[in-house]
Amino acid sequence: MSNQNIITLLSDFGSQDVYVGVMKGVIAQINHQVKVIDLTHHIPPQNILAGSFCLLNAYPYFPMGTVHVAVIDPGVGSQRRGVAIKLAHGYLVGPDNGLLSGVLELFPPIAAVELTNPDYWRTPQPSNTFHGRDIFAAVGAHLSKGVFLHKLGTPIELTNLVNLPIPEYQLTATGIIGYIQYIDHFGNLITNIPGELVAKKNWFVKLENLTIPHDQTYSNAELGVSVALIGSHGWVEIAVNSGNAQFSLQLNWLDPVEIVWEN
Amino acid sequence: MSNQNIITLLSDFGSQDVYVGVMKGVIAQINHQVKVIDLTHHIPPQNILAGSFCLLNAYPYFPMGTVHVAVIDPGVGSQRRGVAIKLAHGYLVGPDNGLLSGVLELFPPIAAVELTNPDYWRTPQPSNTFHGRDIFAAVGAHLSKGVFLHKLGTPIELTNLVNLPIPEYQLTATGIIGYIQYIDHFGNLITNIPGELVAKKNWFVKLENLTIPHDQTYSNAELGVSVALIGSHGWVEIAVNSGNAQFSLQLNWLDPVEIVWEN
Amino acid sequence: MSNQNIITLLSDFGSQDVYVGVMKGVIAQINHQVKVIDLTHHIPPQNILAGSFCLLNAYPYFPMGTVHVAVIDPGVGSQRRGVAIKLAHGYLVGPDNGLLSGVLELFPPIAAVELTNPDYWRTPQPSNTFHGRDIFAAVGAHLSKGVFLHKLGTPIELTNLVNLPIPEYQLTATGIIGYIQYIDHFGNLITNIPGELVAKKNWFVKLENLTIPHDQTYSNAELGVSVALIGSHGWVEIAVNSGNAQFSLQLNWLDPVEIVWEN
Repeated sequence: MSNQNIITLLSDFGSQDVYVGVMKGVIAQINHQVKVIDLTHHIPPQNILAGSFCLLNAYPYFPMGTVHVAVIDPGVGSQRRGVAIKLAHGYLVGPDNGLLSGVLELFPPIAAVELTNPDYWRTPQPSNTFHGRDIFAAVGAHLSKGVFLHKLGTPIELTNLVNLPIPEYQLTATGIIGYIQYIDHFGNLITNIPGELVAKKNWFVKLENLTIPHDQTYSNAELGVSVALIGSHGWVEIAVNSGNAQFSLQLNWLDPVEIVWEN
Repeated sequence: MSNQNIITLLSDFGSQDVYVGVMKGVIAQINHQVKVIDLTHHIPPQNILAGSFCLLNAYPYFPMGTVHVAVIDPGVGSQRRGVAIKLAHGYLVGPDNGLLSGVLELFPPIAAVELTNPDYWRTPQPSNTFHGRDIFAAVGAHLSKGVFLHKLGTPIELTNLVNLPIPEYQLTATGIIGYIQYIDHFGNLITNIPGELVAKKNWFVKLENLTIPHDQTYSNAELGVSVALIGSHGWVEIAVNSGNAQFSLQLNWLDPVEIVWEN
Repeated sequence: MSNQNIITLLSDFGSQDVYVGVMKGVIAQINHQVKVIDLTHHIPPQNILAGSFCLLNAYPYFPMGTVHVAVIDPGVGSQRRGVAIKLAHGYLVGPDNGLLSGVLELFPPIAAVELTNPDYWRTPQPSNTFHGRDIFAAVGAHLSKGVFLHKLGTPIELTNLVNLPIPEYQLTATGIIGYIQYIDHFGNLITNIPGELVAKKNWFVKLENLTIPHDQTYSNAELGVSVALIGSHGWVEIAVNSGNAQFSLQLNWLDPVEIVWEN
């Protein structure tokens, strides 16, 4: 690995404060050459589920060797572990609280360490409240320079990494019941029903007193009308053409969504 | 063109989701060296008019050869065309829905193609909902590496590119009537009246029951008082010193604004 | 100094408009190699106090030679001076309105100039409303390329730089009374009481009809419960575990906070 690699950052730090800028300063002190790309810093505060979904949906689009530093960290300063994980395609760095589990479920880890070696932290006495700056950014920068994973701390059994309790979709006699796992900026409702289960079939979405047809694209629907489609992330999602499905349909995170097969 | 160029990104994707980060990952896979600069990702959702204004106001400040990728794309997945356009000073990439027409009105295009060649897409089977990732980011990255425009697809007649219906200002017996074409983050109201028409003259703005004097700068007005001036974009705008003109004056997009000459 | 340096940007420009992108275009025209890092562009509009606090808290984390361009500039176009200041560790560029005084109080300046030399501006006829683009970004880019400070304009007596009236904490018979000097994205209330005054002591925070215990970390408190701690910036702050202290406690900028020693 050259020091020409990429580090991505994902957090719930928002853009009002200088937290993210400071992490980039720390990274630049260690590896001036590395390119830093923000995934998002607007994960809803402490929403590990949303962070895990976003990280999973960004991970496949980055070059080999990219280091993904993710910090949704309500347990910072407590006994939760900080970890670095090696995968076939890149690295993950962050708290071991389930945030990384979305990626790990689809892209199996090769090795993992608990971040116990302060030689690779910004300071041997990290703040109790900002490991993003004092540990994770620094460790990510060292990884991007080619430091070996095993230098960073104590090996962890891969089976011991924390998993998120993610709801499962269910196949029924008449279709599929899934759940809303993410709501994006446009108010599009993204379920956990994989698009491949419904591709090339005839189906519609059934809500309490409403049926929503499926289509290939938002813009085939009339303005303001709901449509279900296989979204860019590869899951079934519900959108409103030129509108906001979350507000129009009054649905929320983890609400059920039923797909019904058509004859 | 070397691969040391710049790509700018403009969209309505917001910062909550990873859409923008993913576009940068796609770009980095194709051209690791290119510098990516965000213009804004907070264009009001699907507001092509606002996007066109913002792109026009950023375009002149970038170095020769810069590739501007813009994605306000309510018609994604429909029959609207994706295009790449060569200008004297740089390139535009995005949907042919009027978003690019603000720049093109002031900076004439040299050549344009419809993006029909999947060799320069991220994948030959692009998503129906995210051409920003699968087509526009990839095409922009290839352009920044020096790929020739004509490789990207089928030539388009320049006169066939879509134009936005932009309101025109009118000269009257007593002054000028223009329209609010943009409202910025501070609530400043930017009209479509060119500053050069009023420079070195005596004038004021007349609203229903209010006259607003003109001045050189915000801060000559008292705190909370309205002032009209030639803004940094070169158009007549209305501001409130240390306040928000949109809220104070209760004016909105496309509302008329009258300039009256003083004796 | 090589042209491989860093420029940071801090402003109240927000992310809706292209102001920040345009500043980066101006910088790239002058120094294509420089890395630009956003500190934040979401300082509350024209809140110089908040800008000064944020700049101070980011400054120590950047490499030697970094140029910090900060633009909270309600007086733009008036007689307020634009300045560039050399410190042991880096440079500051911006309006001389107190915005830079937080850094200067802790990191003494070496030399300062008023920005009177238009050779280093983007244009000899700068806009009256956007010195961030026409003067400060351009000057910062020239500094990052190694231009000497004294070339940029007229020397200023360091004692003449504008200071902010920052409230002082007071030691009392029973503890310390300080003030809220910043409220972050999470609603954490950051006082101006230095953590070193309370470290290794027993104390609690006393509000009108509430006492708040101190702890090492957010997560030791129960969910939704207030806790006082020494924050990552090094000051005493009040947080709510998995909540928002500003809303829960109904406190605001510059409100007093009392620390009481425990026996």
